[in-house]
Amino acid sequence: MTAGRFPTDVYARRLSAAAVAAADAGLAGLVITPGYDLRYLIGSRAQTFERLTALVLPADGDPTIVVPRLELAALKESAVPELGLAVRDWVDGDNPYALVLEALGGGTVKTAVTDSMPALHLLPLADVLGTVPVLATDVLRRLRMIKDSAEVDALRKAGAAIDRVHARVPDFLVPGRTEADVAADIAEAIVAEGHSEVAFIIVGSGPHGADPHHECSDRELRAGDLVVVDIGGPYEPGYNSDSTRTYSIGEPAPEVARRYAVLQRAQQAAVAAVRPGVTAEQVDAAARDVLAAEGLADAFVHRTGHGIGLSVHEEPYIVAGNSLPLEAGMAFSVEPGIYFPGEWGARIEDIVVVTDDGAEPVNTRPHELVVVPAGPGATA
Amino acid sequence: MTAGRFPTDVYARRLSAAAVAAADAGLAGLVITPGYDLRYLIGSRAQTFERLTALVLPADGDPTIVVPRLELAALKESAVPELGLAVRDWVDGDNPYALVLEALGGGTVKTAVTDSMPALHLLPLADVLGTVPVLATDVLRRLRMIKDSAEVDALRKAGAAIDRVHARVPDFLVPGRTEADVAADIAEAIVAEGHSEVAFIIVGSGPHGADPHHECSDRELRAGDLVVVDIGGPYEPGYNSDSTRTYSIGEPAPEVARRYAVLQRAQQAAVAAVRPGVTAEQVDAAARDVLAAEGLADAFVHRTGHGIGLSVHEEPYIVAGNSLPLEAGMAFSVEPGIYFPGEWGARIEDIVVVTDDGAEPVNTRPHELVVVPAGPGATA
Repeated sequence: MTAGRFPTDVYARRLSAAAVAAADAGLAGLVITPGYDLRYLIGSRAQTFERLTALVLPADGDPTIVVPRLELAALKESAVPELGLAVRDWVDGDNPYALVLEALGGGTVKTAVTDSMPALHLLPLADVLGTVPVLATDVLRRLRMIKDSAEVDALRKAGAAIDRVHARVPDFLVPGRTEADVAADIAEAIVAEGHSEVAFIIVGSGPHGADPHHECSDRELRAGDLVVVDIGGPYEPGYNSDSTRTYSIGEPAPEVARRYAVLQRAQQAAVAAVRPGVTAEQVDAAARDVLAAEGLADAFVHRTGHGIGLSVHEEPYIVAGNSLPLEAGMAFSVEPGIYFPGEWGARIEDIVVVTDDGAEPVNTRPHELVVVPAGPGATA
Repeated sequence: MTAGRFPTDVYARRLSAAAVAAADAGLAGLVITPGYDLRYLIGSRAQTFERLTALVLPADGDPTIVVPRLELAALKESAVPELGLAVRDWVDGDNPYALVLEALGGGTVKTAVTDSMPALHLLPLADVLGTVPVLATDVLRRLRMIKDSAEVDALRKAGAAIDRVHARVPDFLVPGRTEADVAADIAEAIVAEGHSEVAFIIVGSGPHGADPHHECSDRELRAGDLVVVDIGGPYEPGYNSDSTRTYSIGEPAPEVARRYAVLQRAQQAAVAAVRPGVTAEQVDAAARDVLAAEGLADAFVHRTGHGIGLSVHEEPYIVAGNSLPLEAGMAFSVEPGIYFPGEWGARIEDIVVVTDDGAEPVNTRPHELVVVPAGPGATA
């Protein structure tokens, strides 16, 4: 494997499958600017913004890369040279959108564009194409959602790495230290355990745990705090980890322990519900029903999960209203949480991969509330 | 000043001016998702992607922030609370695009969107609005381009900080060290000299200097190399530095020195051309003409410069075909380069601010080729 990407034949297969999907959708082709779709299709990490770089993938015909001449060198790190794709470079003053149209065969063509294409490129492209593109998300959804064995292996490695970080977290949670102190230790551990970088770190202690999107602050940990630790990052060749565990500084109050136990059952129930044919919203409901039965429905204020892969958040979303049937190879988080504003919160999150008859969690740390000592001499 | 942003009245003025500009353009309003425009208008650094966060700024009426309930807390760091803007939060399952339409007053409305709005949001927004938006770039161009005194001061501070880094670069350029070694030292220096982070580091030695977008590699520096060092980063409250100097490991060959001297004159000529009323392309031509007169026209393969502010690359672009007349307060790079593929390259770059009668460079390091010792005992 070339550092940072899969073998070239993986990308050749993906390009073929994407072209077939575009044809099936009645499209003339796809136009993919830098982002996860581009990385998925040709292994390119290009990040250019104001100058157009695009993979033009006709439903019927050979793909072309439209690229600013200045960015040609960056293509070398992608699969483009080994795939032998046509490259049309352009310089300031040229109209790159006309090159896209040409690569699609000309005329008024119905195309789909990657979801991250900025308005900066999408609006002039629509002008040149003579029609407003649609989102390629639908066309690429199955491809991107259903991970092949190399991708599943990459997710397993990322999951094992973040589990190693969680194993070290109790040592970081010392009363008197701030959330930011803990986050700094976690950041170091995320990289030390093999991630290429830190994607996100949430250390939500006490009332901060009640804000699902709190990151970290200068609040000092104290005895009696619950601490939500939600962390992850990309692991080469770029697949992400994402796992949450909740820690307790000293023994939790009985009512906290009771509610946490309900949350733990809810998370287990959702994982147990995962198998091919079950819909995304049924998995969401499996967690929600357990909480509702114990009067905690209102405490669970977000969806149960999100797909994961090259992107931390991608399809399938495990949310009410999503009737998508699960298929083997899909990978997503199962992360119900309970939140009591001004008081405390808790969340438990594993990434699972759908197997032929159930779910394989890539995170294997225990799900119980992890009680850490409340202080020197504490008898927790 | 609140850390990370300007006083609230700065944003109030910008919002008013943007609404007036939208009205002048015959638009019902602007829809601004996270990115530099949002940061410019309300001091928000939000980065949410798949859930819509948007500032809706009607040409005639009060602005509204549409935001996922989960992201409400992040607004606290922006100017939104002090500005007293209306906030419409939404949860998974709601249609946030309908909230945008409502905030614009309903009906079929002609709007403009920020250039970074992803297709993911732009296409469903266009559906709900019943019409394809245009780019807000034109509407916000003058506002964003013409820096006020607080912004110019921020650019000066960033410029002084990167100058301090360049002052230290000769110590890093020791033969036998790799470009990556040098880049690591520079990264540390960029932060140590006060930047909040590193935006980019180019260390292009020998033949790598001939690729304007080379970043860095494991190539070892050696006697006789020219080394292009192009570096920068954001300085609180977020305005960027960007400066290039070219270094020579030992005395350069006479022909290298001759060509470098032409480049230096070209850069000087372009800076000297800057004043209100002169067009962007005239500044580009000023550099290009000097090079062409010495047979080096083909060696200069990119535009002369780009605007800079919250974004490293923004308007005005100093490029052939841009007939925009310069105005006092505009800030941009002047960075001609000469490139000889497989051999060497050189570039000189300062950020300048247009004054009432000329240009104020915010970078003041000498422009001569900086000769560093070729090795122990070298007599360079």
